[in-house]
Amino acid sequence: MTTRIVELRKGILKKNDELAAGLRGRYGQAGVLVLNLVSSPGTGKTAFLERTLRELRGRGARVAALVGDLETDNDARRLAASGAPVRQINTHGICHLDAEMIDKHLADWEGVELGGLDYLFIENVGNLVCPSSYDLGEKVRVALLSVTEGEDKPLKYPTLFNSADAAVITKMDLAEPCGFDRELALRNINEIRPGIRIFETSSKTGAGMGKWLDYLAAERAGGDLGSGKR
Amino acid sequence: MTTRIVELRKGILKKNDELAAGLRGRYGQAGVLVLNLVSSPGTGKTAFLERTLRELRGRGARVAALVGDLETDNDARRLAASGAPVRQINTHGICHLDAEMIDKHLADWEGVELGGLDYLFIENVGNLVCPSSYDLGEKVRVALLSVTEGEDKPLKYPTLFNSADAAVITKMDLAEPCGFDRELALRNINEIRPGIRIFETSSKTGAGMGKWLDYLAAERAGGDLGSGKR
Repeated sequence: MTTRIVELRKGILKKNDELAAGLRGRYGQAGVLVLNLVSSPGTGKTAFLERTLRELRGRGARVAALVGDLETDNDARRLAASGAPVRQINTHGICHLDAEMIDKHLADWEGVELGGLDYLFIENVGNLVCPSSYDLGEKVRVALLSVTEGEDKPLKYPTLFNSADAAVITKMDLAEPCGFDRELALRNINEIRPGIRIFETSSKTGAGMGKWLDYLAAERAGGDLGSGKR
Repeated sequence: MTTRIVELRKGILKKNDELAAGLRGRYGQAGVLVLNLVSSPGTGKTAFLERTLRELRGRGARVAALVGDLETDNDARRLAASGAPVRQINTHGICHLDAEMIDKHLADWEGVELGGLDYLFIENVGNLVCPSSYDLGEKVRVALLSVTEGEDKPLKYPTLFNSADAAVITKMDLAEPCGFDRELALRNINEIRPGIRIFETSSKTGAGMGKWLDYLAAERAGGDLGSGKR
């Protein structure tokens, strides 16, 4: 039975990769930088994304977000406070987003066209395991980690950090009460993904957001928005 | 393809349920209370369990722990500081424990016999989704949630909280700097699982541990250790 499952899973991932390649091509033609944000539940993805959307809009950028959750539209409602168009994807029990869900929700998103966007953010379902296997056609995969979670997460969930293009440490305002060991966290991230760009941020105080937004602008200006390959 | 996956998954879960029923019977015969701890990565399961093991040993109880992780034996090494026998289960990419893994690791655990234990704790892989589907034969499933994660987790991951027998809120020492809304968290947990026992704890200060240990003793004394059914 296990062999059949593995074969079927391979088939599903192959189909996902094909759909993701199509999405990647469309993102490139539209000139939109697409990011896929992955972390545990509770890392603070939504707060970080809400602030990112708001500050990018403040800089005059055209932004939108798709947000995945098993249930509820809490996150979409929170993100909508940024003023950006936001669409909730409820997966009803599936613990990750896949390329087909993205394709479907882009197809009938009223008032939003890829060609009218500079940045599209995809907030994945909170899960450190399964989202790593599903390419969504994004150019930049972002692994988030909060100071409250423990510095050894990169070692315990290597696939996620190893497939990420950037790492964001969130809730830096809580570093001291949490006894966060910054050097150890940076060392562990670098052990799994040597040389990865790391941003130390607080969505509450705004610390580190400037460098993060500059990075986004540079990634977008760097072109090849549809040429990446996972 | 999706239909075939669903059928295969049903078969896997059925086989797991059969194995779990066998485990449950053995736990009952041995007179050991078995608990399955489930939460996000970073909720503080390991710190909470380490303190629980240590304090139970201080009360003269015979305790042991199995701990699941994708990779590393960090958690087993941390838990071993309690003085209790601890065994690491590395799942190598599988995002939950299953009854077969438990059965296998119990079978050749040198120096540990179910009959010589009062309590066996199973720390599941950090994941709020998949562990809910896999019965490990435990009498008590414990859903943990930290004050740093956001009060709406029970609404967003209803299956886990709905299948839990007890809820533990961790890191209460951080409630104030995190702006934790206690009333909202309790309301959300009760909405998904009305009347569930909730423990508010801090592994750092020891707050709430007394009530938790009393609950464990009462569950054990209550008998029927092998008669539960999920």
